[in-house]
Amino acid sequence: MHTLPKGYRLATFKAGFRKGERDDLALLVSDAPAALAGVFTTNIFKAAPVLVGMETVQTRRHARAVLVNAGRANACTGDEGIAKCRATLDMAAKATGLQAHEILPMSTGVIGEQLRLELWEKAVPPLAQKLGTADLETFARAIMTTDAFPKFAARELKLAGGTVRLCGAAKGAGMICPNMATMLAVLFCDAAVDTERWRGMFRRAADLTFNRVSVDGDTSTNDTLIGLANGASGVSIREDEFPLLEDAVRDLLDKISYMLVQDGEGATKVMHIRVRGAASPEDAQLAARAVGHSPLVKTAMFGRDPNWGRIAAAAGRSGASFTAENVNIWLCGVQLLKNGQPTGVDVDAVLTGPLDQRDIPIEIDLGAGDAEYLFLASDLGHDYVSCNADYRS
Amino acid sequence: MHTLPKGYRLATFKAGFRKGERDDLALLVSDAPAALAGVFTTNIFKAAPVLVGMETVQTRRHARAVLVNAGRANACTGDEGIAKCRATLDMAAKATGLQAHEILPMSTGVIGEQLRLELWEKAVPPLAQKLGTADLETFARAIMTTDAFPKFAARELKLAGGTVRLCGAAKGAGMICPNMATMLAVLFCDAAVDTERWRGMFRRAADLTFNRVSVDGDTSTNDTLIGLANGASGVSIREDEFPLLEDAVRDLLDKISYMLVQDGEGATKVMHIRVRGAASPEDAQLAARAVGHSPLVKTAMFGRDPNWGRIAAAAGRSGASFTAENVNIWLCGVQLLKNGQPTGVDVDAVLTGPLDQRDIPIEIDLGAGDAEYLFLASDLGHDYVSCNADYRS
Repeated sequence: MHTLPKGYRLATFKAGFRKGERDDLALLVSDAPAALAGVFTTNIFKAAPVLVGMETVQTRRHARAVLVNAGRANACTGDEGIAKCRATLDMAAKATGLQAHEILPMSTGVIGEQLRLELWEKAVPPLAQKLGTADLETFARAIMTTDAFPKFAARELKLAGGTVRLCGAAKGAGMICPNMATMLAVLFCDAAVDTERWRGMFRRAADLTFNRVSVDGDTSTNDTLIGLANGASGVSIREDEFPLLEDAVRDLLDKISYMLVQDGEGATKVMHIRVRGAASPEDAQLAARAVGHSPLVKTAMFGRDPNWGRIAAAAGRSGASFTAENVNIWLCGVQLLKNGQPTGVDVDAVLTGPLDQRDIPIEIDLGAGDAEYLFLASDLGHDYVSCNADYRS
Repeated sequence: MHTLPKGYRLATFKAGFRKGERDDLALLVSDAPAALAGVFTTNIFKAAPVLVGMETVQTRRHARAVLVNAGRANACTGDEGIAKCRATLDMAAKATGLQAHEILPMSTGVIGEQLRLELWEKAVPPLAQKLGTADLETFARAIMTTDAFPKFAARELKLAGGTVRLCGAAKGAGMICPNMATMLAVLFCDAAVDTERWRGMFRRAADLTFNRVSVDGDTSTNDTLIGLANGASGVSIREDEFPLLEDAVRDLLDKISYMLVQDGEGATKVMHIRVRGAASPEDAQLAARAVGHSPLVKTAMFGRDPNWGRIAAAAGRSGASFTAENVNIWLCGVQLLKNGQPTGVDVDAVLTGPLDQRDIPIEIDLGAGDAEYLFLASDLGHDYVSCNADYRS
């Protein structure tokens, strides 16, 4: 059981949005206004809670609460979806004594279906009553959909003025089944940071973590990452200590984003794809993402097949600029391509063991410059297809 | 049994490149020099036969033959691969009395392994001896790897001066298993066309057909499409009849490229994704390809799941520029999104039947302009994973 950051209370409730016995509604409340940061999906089709949350982040510097439901994503639901999202915030505001604009909404689940407000009306008051009864794991469980395990992490940061605590919880990336990929995450801490600084460190940390992982490349309509810092630790942070706080935020997001890949639907592997020697950061990213999204590479890794030609081929079609003769490729530390020529390693003999590991390092030096990029991606197995195709049968 | 275009002879042989009893080496010879057109993979890692073939197309206006092997792709094989590719052309030249530069090579199969020339030396002379014994289907069968069925088509074109015949054969797209995606195709006809005109019509036809289909989005190192026109029909084509010939070429490539999608590994569906109302042709293409490559859309189609939100979400993350409020979406002719609002159709009731069909029309009007794009893509099922992950077990 993790010690929560000071000044936060959590609650979960079984509202009946989803089939099964699990809680499917979660609430996080900060006793004091918290510096608010948010990173949202770039998808043009933004779910109602994303549109509402973005407006809050754009117009407000602080927030008090996050309200998360599983079961319905409230995406592609038009004006009615927006109105119903706001109605749920009004309910939560009434039940908690907060203002609706102090509460960030998050939804995950089936797309294109409206929220059932009658269920919300029954659930929100007892949910608010339960504030303070849930721990981090319970909260993380209540926002799961097809996740195989709850995703949460916590850490302490000892500073000159005392200890600051950070907690994070997320639901799956690629995360899809039974209906729609959604990544939802919240990081909350009791450090005292002004909003502008908090947003800067949070965005940089997200860019190095959540924005570098993929299960299936399908950016959801609902992806949302919220960061709160309420200052309840009472610790005064020295100017030279803020980098330590940023490191801690990045470390926590790194842990949680790794879990997202680890728990990709049907995933058995985490590929750590590092592209070096690219002509530009964009090229490095293009090549790494092409490898991480390639169905051929992903199925080969699932099959423990040292089929490194697929890695080369994916980089080669990525749009990154390089010449084949300068490329070097390593799989699990074994060099397979050297300056564009095959090294002739007996891949079956050398790589069968390493490919049984969960973490698979893939390294590609494009020989075209100095830029690099690290990308984490899952493999592609039978259960991905089952999870995303079979649930209606 | 199709009547071949005049002046062509085909042969196949079991060289033992692949396991099993099937022929795995094929030769096509034109009695006269044929106007030569070629379209090759854009992958930076080009297989040895692609590099050799591209050089031939760049430096020569005519060719006499195409030599195709299954079993090894001769890709990522470095300088040795180039030398061995040339050695196979020398063997075929010697056995047929042609010049090596008159023969186009094509290879498909395992990547990163060298051709076994000792097998070629035994196979090529008897292969050449058999010229004239194979029909189009036999030829198409010999170049298969994981293809479920041979892909070939033929048609006649009656012109004022007489009849011209066209034939085409291909092996699978996405076409992967057991090792590497490869699309190989040859179209040969007995029309008399000068090389420049032939290349123009061939490239335009390829762009509207082969470049608009996908199984898994993994552009291969070996993709090659060769067109030959040897003039053996003796038919003099009038200036105003060349558009008819171009139509016939496009029609034949259209039929064959459809078969490639139909026979995607594990595929049960062909999605016909038409994006209209895009701000630019590039945007239309971006949106159509994002939908066709989306693992979530592909698995939904495999599962006969009317999960149209995934279609919207894929378009929304495609990079195409539009606003959600102007988008209209139809699946199997049923409108599901109207100006960004869900139509509220009972999708299970209305779409369960239509989704059992093999051909699935998906139409998206982005409401942002006048550009459009049609893209054909397969679904994603269990057999794709099996085919690409399990073959070593």
